[in-house]
Amino acid sequence: MAELRTVPLSALPAPSAPALDARTELAEAVKGRVSQADGDRLAYARDFWPLGLIFQREGRVPPPPDLIVWPSSEDEIQAVIAVARRRRLPVIPYGAGSGVCGGTWAVNGGIALDLKRLDRISPVDPAARTVDADAGVMGETLERRLAADGWQLGHAPSSMYMSTVGGWLAARSAGQLSSRWGKIEDMVTSVRAVLGTGERIETPERPFSGPDVAQLLIGSEGTLCVFTRARLRVFPLPEGRAFHGYDFKSLADGLEAIRVMFRAGLRPSVVRLYDPFDTAIVGDQKPHVSTSSPAQKPLLSRELLPALYRVLAPQTLGRPGFMNRAASLFKKSRLVLVFEGEAQRALDEDASARTLCARLGATDLGPEPAQKWLAARYDVSYRMSKVFEGGAFADTFEVAAPWERVLEVYERVRAAVAPHAFVLCHFSHAYLEGCSLYFSFVGAAPEGQERERYETIWRIALSAAQSAGSNVSHHHGVGLLKARALHDALGDGRHALKMLKEHYDPDGIMNPGKLGL
Amino acid sequence: MAELRTVPLSALPAPSAPALDARTELAEAVKGRVSQADGDRLAYARDFWPLGLIFQREGRVPPPPDLIVWPSSEDEIQAVIAVARRRRLPVIPYGAGSGVCGGTWAVNGGIALDLKRLDRISPVDPAARTVDADAGVMGETLERRLAADGWQLGHAPSSMYMSTVGGWLAARSAGQLSSRWGKIEDMVTSVRAVLGTGERIETPERPFSGPDVAQLLIGSEGTLCVFTRARLRVFPLPEGRAFHGYDFKSLADGLEAIRVMFRAGLRPSVVRLYDPFDTAIVGDQKPHVSTSSPAQKPLLSRELLPALYRVLAPQTLGRPGFMNRAASLFKKSRLVLVFEGEAQRALDEDASARTLCARLGATDLGPEPAQKWLAARYDVSYRMSKVFEGGAFADTFEVAAPWERVLEVYERVRAAVAPHAFVLCHFSHAYLEGCSLYFSFVGAAPEGQERERYETIWRIALSAAQSAGSNVSHHHGVGLLKARALHDALGDGRHALKMLKEHYDPDGIMNPGKLGL
Repeated sequence: MAELRTVPLSALPAPSAPALDARTELAEAVKGRVSQADGDRLAYARDFWPLGLIFQREGRVPPPPDLIVWPSSEDEIQAVIAVARRRRLPVIPYGAGSGVCGGTWAVNGGIALDLKRLDRISPVDPAARTVDADAGVMGETLERRLAADGWQLGHAPSSMYMSTVGGWLAARSAGQLSSRWGKIEDMVTSVRAVLGTGERIETPERPFSGPDVAQLLIGSEGTLCVFTRARLRVFPLPEGRAFHGYDFKSLADGLEAIRVMFRAGLRPSVVRLYDPFDTAIVGDQKPHVSTSSPAQKPLLSRELLPALYRVLAPQTLGRPGFMNRAASLFKKSRLVLVFEGEAQRALDEDASARTLCARLGATDLGPEPAQKWLAARYDVSYRMSKVFEGGAFADTFEVAAPWERVLEVYERVRAAVAPHAFVLCHFSHAYLEGCSLYFSFVGAAPEGQERERYETIWRIALSAAQSAGSNVSHHHGVGLLKARALHDALGDGRHALKMLKEHYDPDGIMNPGKLGL
Repeated sequence: MAELRTVPLSALPAPSAPALDARTELAEAVKGRVSQADGDRLAYARDFWPLGLIFQREGRVPPPPDLIVWPSSEDEIQAVIAVARRRRLPVIPYGAGSGVCGGTWAVNGGIALDLKRLDRISPVDPAARTVDADAGVMGETLERRLAADGWQLGHAPSSMYMSTVGGWLAARSAGQLSSRWGKIEDMVTSVRAVLGTGERIETPERPFSGPDVAQLLIGSEGTLCVFTRARLRVFPLPEGRAFHGYDFKSLADGLEAIRVMFRAGLRPSVVRLYDPFDTAIVGDQKPHVSTSSPAQKPLLSRELLPALYRVLAPQTLGRPGFMNRAASLFKKSRLVLVFEGEAQRALDEDASARTLCARLGATDLGPEPAQKWLAARYDVSYRMSKVFEGGAFADTFEVAAPWERVLEVYERVRAAVAPHAFVLCHFSHAYLEGCSLYFSFVGAAPEGQERERYETIWRIALSAAQSAGSNVSHHHGVGLLKARALHDALGDGRHALKMLKEHYDPDGIMNPGKLGL
């Protein structure tokens, strides 16, 4: 992690002189929708990266943007970029701030470009089965609008209520149903954007000839362009869903089940395998669905984890390895599957999966674990700060790995992090080649040492994962958090990225520092 | 189509002075494997673009490359590019010459870089299910090697015996089974290449974060880089296949069947719908499978078409509209389907498709039409020149369109071309959003006017297709043939492409003129 500058939370530095000089021009560009108020600057200074909460406990905050602007059209975005180029001011495209890697932190100040006024959604084109959505459209708004007419994107990130179409594109978002409906890059048929040069671009519909410029811009995290609009595939709302939970004797058996399932051509929309520790506490994710089946009774409660941690912390501080070792006594791994689409096909696929899991010795838990998961799927993202209030910290760490490396990545990350924090993991977003690993960790440190402990955990976790063969990130993006790791992983490829940067953003104004650019 | 320079076939111009000056350095770069022999230069001057055969009848040939080199490693390719940059010599990456758009024509001379010595194939990694193949590996060689161990790529272009992995990447190739196994860009997990700057690049494995540089290079037709190696997905050889043919009362019904099938989640590996005229002659594609079913008896023979044309040409020259009108009396459209993979699933999917086709009033023809198609699938590509020997010309013209435009593209291209040539069409390579249209035309013109007639047909066909809403090309690429059409289709996007070109190929040496660059 790069060394990050912070400023006092209670006394933000004034906007820079070049920014203030540009204010009149910017106001002209966006019809007066410019702010330099400290309240606004503070709001745009952070995203959901937990490091921001650790800073907050220290009374600090990342450097805020100098100004915030709210353009409402491509023309206005072009005008803002023209001003920024002339004045050499950073431009930070901003969706809804759900990022967890510092992708919108204004490390060098500049202009936060809030895109939420670009909020048009076209009617669905039923012949082409596509919808056009502006970059500032919120995920939940879009899915609700589509659902009213019987459609869905099938994109359901847990940030659904606080993320935008533009943000999804910028960070290569994956929704919880990606194994069936694809990641955002698979859902897009074309994009519109304004480059760092100020030029507009609209990419051709697939299939097409020549280089794929859309796929080049997707994932660029604001460093090359501002997305303005996307044409996205839509699907009819599922006619039916089939739910199932299974307990496997070991994590390895559960992973094997997913691998075999995908290789046999089954495509569950939801596939989530919990490691033994997470399995022990996963049962009550949705307290409002009652159950009397003993197989689904949780041993621990996820809700209670932070509380438990606070109780145990004084005893285990500096040696959370104890609880991690206790956790390793658990062996069972729970798999949650949902098949959806045409009703009979969903049932057929569910039946095939059942046969396959039985062959691997799994216990069939019936539909309830999966139904519970679905009902609670958006509950998690808003609950993190309580942990921090209690003096601890928590974060999630996600990567992907090929099937033959998944277990090793898991073991090595756990071994590396265990001395410093509690570690849980689940496996989801499966592919023919592998799947993603999604670690959660909860830790604490003596007062004043939280940041150091937090950064240590990240460093060793990323290092363990990468040396065991994982990639840098599955769907949380890179931002500042993983900039160094991406740099290392790209090897020679980083020249190609630098070239793109120099060409699409010749003045280096676009979201500086992100992706290591 | 751009105005193309030609040279006399019988007296090639000597290699240029700058090329001859570079010969010693190039010989050092590739251990002596350099040729300036006229026989070699002639062999590399053309590809399978039928325009080359028309030139040949005029005793002409496109400008040949000055020299041909055969590197055997990335190091050697880098050395060649270093010489070419210093000497400002064009570099034309060359696979096996199966292109049909002039993508390897040396319009400004230069160095033909034959990649066939890069011919390594790694063992399959059975855990990851991938294989590493060098750019110069021939398609048939690769599939045969894989099949020996029970694997397949599922990539089966009709050029299989005369195209390479590098060529597939360069032109965004689609095999005949793409509806199930994907186009080449879907099969690739990463690529290695040498850029026009001389730098090497290896792209990260999917899924990854940041811009997708692999997808940017794929489809670049030699204008940005030389591909050297690809990591490709492999699949087990299909455990089973299910075959079926259907006759629909109309083309529109057949198209509707494919659309509904794909939207219901069925993924046939082969899906080919023949227009009524093609249906009338398609029956005997594979004469060595005998049949007594009247439904499968052809009215005409594809083999006989050129002969028929020669007989009719004197009467119909200048008015092939007559035969096209006669053809429009046919109404039935034949659909050929193959499902493959796990045996029971293939049967299940075949059964679902059968129900669906019956609902649309199709006549079930049993397995034979599809079996015949599969057995004959590589027969077509090598039969074209006979048409030309007879004084006529033929070509194929492929685009893709969204479902709601497919019929209009079909009608308008037919209407536009009908006065000038016989037109057949089939529909294949289906997607959720649409499918490809693959037109074949056979025409003739008074001696000395063939080229003009041929170019006219292309111009009006492309114009009709694009104005009706098609893209530029589905899988034959762009080359010289469609450079202008791509330019028009890209609109603002062409700036983005130019920027890439300037950056990855700062001296403009990489395959000049292709993609309009």
